Order: sequence, then C-alpha cells, then structure tokens
Amino acid sequence: MSRTLSDIGEFGLIDRIHKLIEEEGTQTPGITLSIGDDTAAIRPRQGYELLITCDCLVEGRHYLPDLIHPIDLGRRAMVVNISDIGAMGGLPLYTLVSLGLREDILIEDIESMYRGFLTELSPFGASIIGGNITESKANFIDITLLGEIEEGKLMLRSSAEEGDAILITGFPGQAIAGLELLKNSQSAHDMKDHPLVKAYNTPEHRAREGHSIALSGSARAMIDTSDGLLADLGHICKESDVGAELIQEKLPLSNTLRQAASELNRNPYDLILGDSDDYELILTCAPDNIEKIKSIIKGVSEIPVTEIGRITEARDRIQLICPDGQKRPVTPRGWDHFKK
Amino acid sequence: MSRTLSDIGEFGLIDRIHKLIEEEGTQTPGITLSIGDDTAAIRPRQGYELLITCDCLVEGRHYLPDLIHPIDLGRRAMVVNISDIGAMGGLPLYTLVSLGLREDILIEDIESMYRGFLTELSPFGASIIGGNITESKANFIDITLLGEIEEGKLMLRSSAEEGDAILITGFPGQAIAGLELLKNSQSAHDMKDHPLVKAYNTPEHRAREGHSIALSGSARAMIDTSDGLLADLGHICKESDVGAELIQEKLPLSNTLRQAASELNRNPYDLILGDSDDYELILTCAPDNIEKIKSIIKGVSEIPVTEIGRITEARDRIQLICPDGQKRPVTPRGWDHFKK
Repeated sequence: MSRTLSDIGEFGLIDRIHKLIEEEGTQTPGITLSIGDDTAAIRPRQGYELLITCDCLVEGRHYLPDLIHPIDLGRRAMVVNISDIGAMGGLPLYTLVSLGLREDILIEDIESMYRGFLTELSPFGASIIGGNITESKANFIDITLLGEIEEGKLMLRSSAEEGDAILITGFPGQAIAGLELLKNSQSAHDMKDHPLVKAYNTPEHRAREGHSIALSGSARAMIDTSDGLLADLGHICKESDVGAELIQEKLPLSNTLRQAASELNRNPYDLILGDSDDYELILTCAPDNIEKIKSIIKGVSEIPVTEIGRITEARDRIQLICPDGQKRPVTPRGWDHFKK
Repeated sequence: MSRTLSDIGEFGLIDRIHKLIEEEGTQTPGITLSIGDDTAAIRPRQGYELLITCDCLVEGRHYLPDLIHPIDLGRRAMVVNISDIGAMGGLPLYTLVSLGLREDILIEDIESMYRGFLTELSPFGASIIGGNITESKANFIDITLLGEIEEGKLMLRSSAEEGDAILITGFPGQAIAGLELLKNSQSAHDMKDHPLVKAYNTPEHRAREGHSIALSGSARAMIDTSDGLLADLGHICKESDVGAELIQEKLPLSNTLRQAASELNRNPYDLILGDSDDYELILTCAPDNIEKIKSIIKGVSEIPVTEIGRITEARDRIQLICPDGQKRPVTPRGWDHFKK
C-alpha cells in the first residue's frame, strides 16, 4: 500500500530523504557539513563570488498537480533557480529545499520530487545540503540555491547601454502555449509528449550558456525570462535607465508555436512577449559582439540565438516595430501575482 | 484606508520592501550585490566557514495570527534561524526572505514583519539580501539565513562523549506554557506582557553565547532546543551514538513556570522536557570545563546555565533520575509534524 507522510512522520521522512540524497546525489567540493545538523557548512573557493537566490512554487498557483508528474515538478522547481544563477553568469553548487506538505501526500511522490531535483543538480556536481519540511494546507516547494562565479564576472540587469543589440536564446512563449494546450485537452497524459507541453513541464535553463557568456566578457546586461520576455526586458530597461525597440518580424517564432497559437486562437506574438515559464536568456551587447556571442553559445549548445532589437535612450519605454513599420508602445505585462 | 497586497501588486510590494530595507536596515560587509537582480552576490571572508540554514513558519501551524503581532512574528521567524546559526557557534550575516501571502494581507502588516526581521538582524550588522514573494492560500514565512564561523570552530551535535556533563541555558518550557496560557485566555491583548507569553511571542536566541562557547573550544557538542529539550538531546544522542541521564531535580524550573503549570494543571517537568519554542542551547562538555563554560556565558549575558545530567554509553537511550532515585526511561517527544 502506498504510504503517506502522516504514516511515517517528519523525522521518518527526513531519514528517507537523507538516504536517497546520499545514494543518488553527488558530492560537491567545499562542503564541511551537509544534512543532519542545525545548519550546513561550506568553505567557499577563493577568487569566486557566491551567488544566492530563492524561488518558490506553490501548488495551484505555479503548478497543477494533475498536470505534472512529481519528478518533473522537482526538475522544474530546480530549473527555475538554476536559471537565476545562470542569468548572473554563475553555475549552481549547493541547495536547500524547504517543503510545505499536506499530510496526505504520498511518500513516493516526495521521493520522485527529490529525484527531479537531483536530475537537474547532478550534471553540475551540485548537491542538496539542507532544508526544512513542514506541514501546510497547500503543498509548496521553496528552494534556495547557491552558485559561484569567477570574481568580477557577474552579469547584471543594470548595465545595458543605448545602442546595444538585444539577443534572446531559444523560443520564448513555448511554455505558456504548452500550459494552455494542457488546460484545453481532455487528458494530460495523452499530451505529455507534445513538445510545447514538455517545454512547460520540464523547461530548460541556460546556465551553461550564461556562464560562457559571462566568462567571455562580451555581453553587457543579462536576465532570464522568468517573468516573460517583455517584463524581463522591462527590468533591464528600468535598472539600466534605458528603453528598447523590438522588431516584431525578428521575434523567434517556431512552427510548433505558430500552429499551437492558431489552435488556441491566440496571437503568437502575445505568447512570445507575455508571461511564460521558459527561462531563456535576454542579453544585450555592443553590436560588434553579436557574432562572437552567437559563436560562444554555439560552442555550448545547439540553442539558437536571435537578435530581436536595440536598446534606446527612451527611458523605461519599450516599442514594438510592426511589419508595417509603425512603432507601437508595449507594456511589460509579466506575471504580477497579486495586482487586480 | 489600509491597503492590501492586491491593491499594490507584487512589484509594488517589492519596491516598498526594498525601500524599507535600504532605509532601516544595516549594510553588511562582503555584499557585492543585494536585492534587485536575479540573485544576490557575496564575497565570503577568508578563514571563515559559511553556515546556511532555513526554517519556515506556516500560519495556523507555527503561529496563530490572532495571538501574535506581525512585528513579533517577524522577530520570531528570524530568531528561529539565528538560533540555528548560533547552535553551530556562528553569527548571522545575510538572509533571504521568502513569503507566501494571501492577497488580502495588509501592506502595513507585511512592513511590520520586515521591521521584526530587521530588529533581530541589525544588532549583528546582518542584512536582508534577497527573497521571493508569492501568492498562497495560507501565509508562510520561509527564511534562509547565512552566517559565518571561524574555520575549525564548528560545534556539532555528533561529538558528545560518554561522561560529558549536559548543560542547558535559560528556562526551557516557558514558550509552551506561554502558548497554553494564551489559548486559555479570553484576550490575547491582556496577556501580552505576561513573561511566559513574551517568551512564546518573542523568544530569545543564544547566538552570542553559542559563538563565545565555540571560540573557547571548551564544549564538546551543542544544539538548540527548537524541537524541545528531550527531542534535541535525543538528536545529540543519536548522532553521537551515546545515551543520557537527566536528573529531574536539577532541571531549571522558574517560579513563573511552576505557577503557570499549576494554573494549567500540567506537570511542569513535562513542559520543560517536551516540545516548546524556546531556542535555548543544550551543550555537553568534559566535567572539568563546566565552570569555564559558565563563566564564558556570564561574560556575554545574564542567562543562567544549569548542569542537568550526564552523557552515558547507553546508546540512544535517555533516562530521567526521579527524586526518589528511580531511573525512568523517557522518549524524545519533540514536534514531529505529521505522525499520527
């Protein structure tokens, strides 16, 4: 019979998770104390800065349990955080996982989630060094991730300059299209291999790409698209005190997304620009560096890089240049959780 | 009119919190990037280990909003984490605050919570460097705290030895008594100045005491009583592969607690030994070091230190020596959230 959390209790669960991590996880250098005491302890490497981020997925808000398998949920929760480390140019090292769990949650589902975390951490030699488990009326996964970056190589969102080219990796908008397809379908299971549904359930991060770009020193500003392309470009504009022009025809639109937009009766450019859980990178660079950046990314992965516009002096204003040549002001409409 | 989260939205809230922290918080050395980008960045000091812990308070589970003011809730959430850093011998430096919030929560209450965090952080020159805010059906506060300790001075729970004396700071059991008094009272407001209610609402940590003890090298094992005296002594026994004997008559019982136990019709020793949110330190040391440890703590604070028993070879077994001389086996009955 499947056992639930209330059958084995918090300490019982912690023992099992501890064992799973020891057996299936990797050992990261620099850890002097891992899970099992009041805190974890590390000795950071000299010559590196330590990056720290946290991000939380709440059931019903950031995921629907019927639409995602626990292992994919674990992967996604970790990717969201790895993406933040990558957007600074760093690589992940250590993580603490804090879970709020309903007492009726199945132990095997919790273990699957941890396998999802490890699936994303292990390729970097990164590991789980601590965490917390508590009962909650709604399940949530709150992850703190630490990473490192060579001193002086930090990539900021506040350093874009007028005249910079704006580049984007991959195909933003795929995840939101996948989610909408899932919601419209009769069976989540039948849809699980659809490329857009996969883009939503197990998004990819661009941490290796981000790290290579940071080391090269050839980009000016960088951010991930966790709030959506426009909203995150908006963050760059606000923090860098600049504006931006995007050329609609240059926005990367895959055939898969075009077809899905038509099925969903949506404008595909709304999908690309709006809120979507894709975790691509937006970066800005001197126009002379565009080809260099493309070739750096080519050295790391097969993900396409597209030039989609320019940074302007028009403070905090983003304009879309339409196919007819008209400039249309657009507002960052990323995910602002609460505002009505 | 009081405004709620849904009036100003996530980004509006983040701007306000950011401003509050800048105006009312302190600047901690070593921060290269604080709130406002994808991650925070720090340059850890050489010769120190970095300690990392996280702990979460869930509304309805770890606190009842009617019984605690938001500023006290913020203080308590931070104290819980500072206590973990202190139990390793370290001092707090940087924190990330992750909040799950109902959309009807008042902005002024959220700001009060942050003032509570800062009240506890500022005396250490520690600061908030990041975090996350998300909507949730139940409010929760999940804090990641980083601290530092001189290399090689880490205090573990796994290093107790047979024959060690067991010492405890302060008066464990006060917080649970305070909570029970609150629950039994007609008005939480009328009770707010009762010393036991204050012990529950704004518990103290022993981080300065823990740090001094760690630096002195005179204790063997250390842990805080976040799960209750018996449960946490149980953690020491389990991790150190030893047992313990406690002498009931030596357990520190204040007059206030004795009186409250009588009012509550409870055995005061159950309150002292069981689950309670007190955040005292349990430490073990060679008997020769007892006086040294007492005098070290006296140099830092006025908190009493009491010798309450000995570490034995009886693996993982704790016995209570009753006033009649009989030995009674006792089970760690700390807070195991889920087990039924």
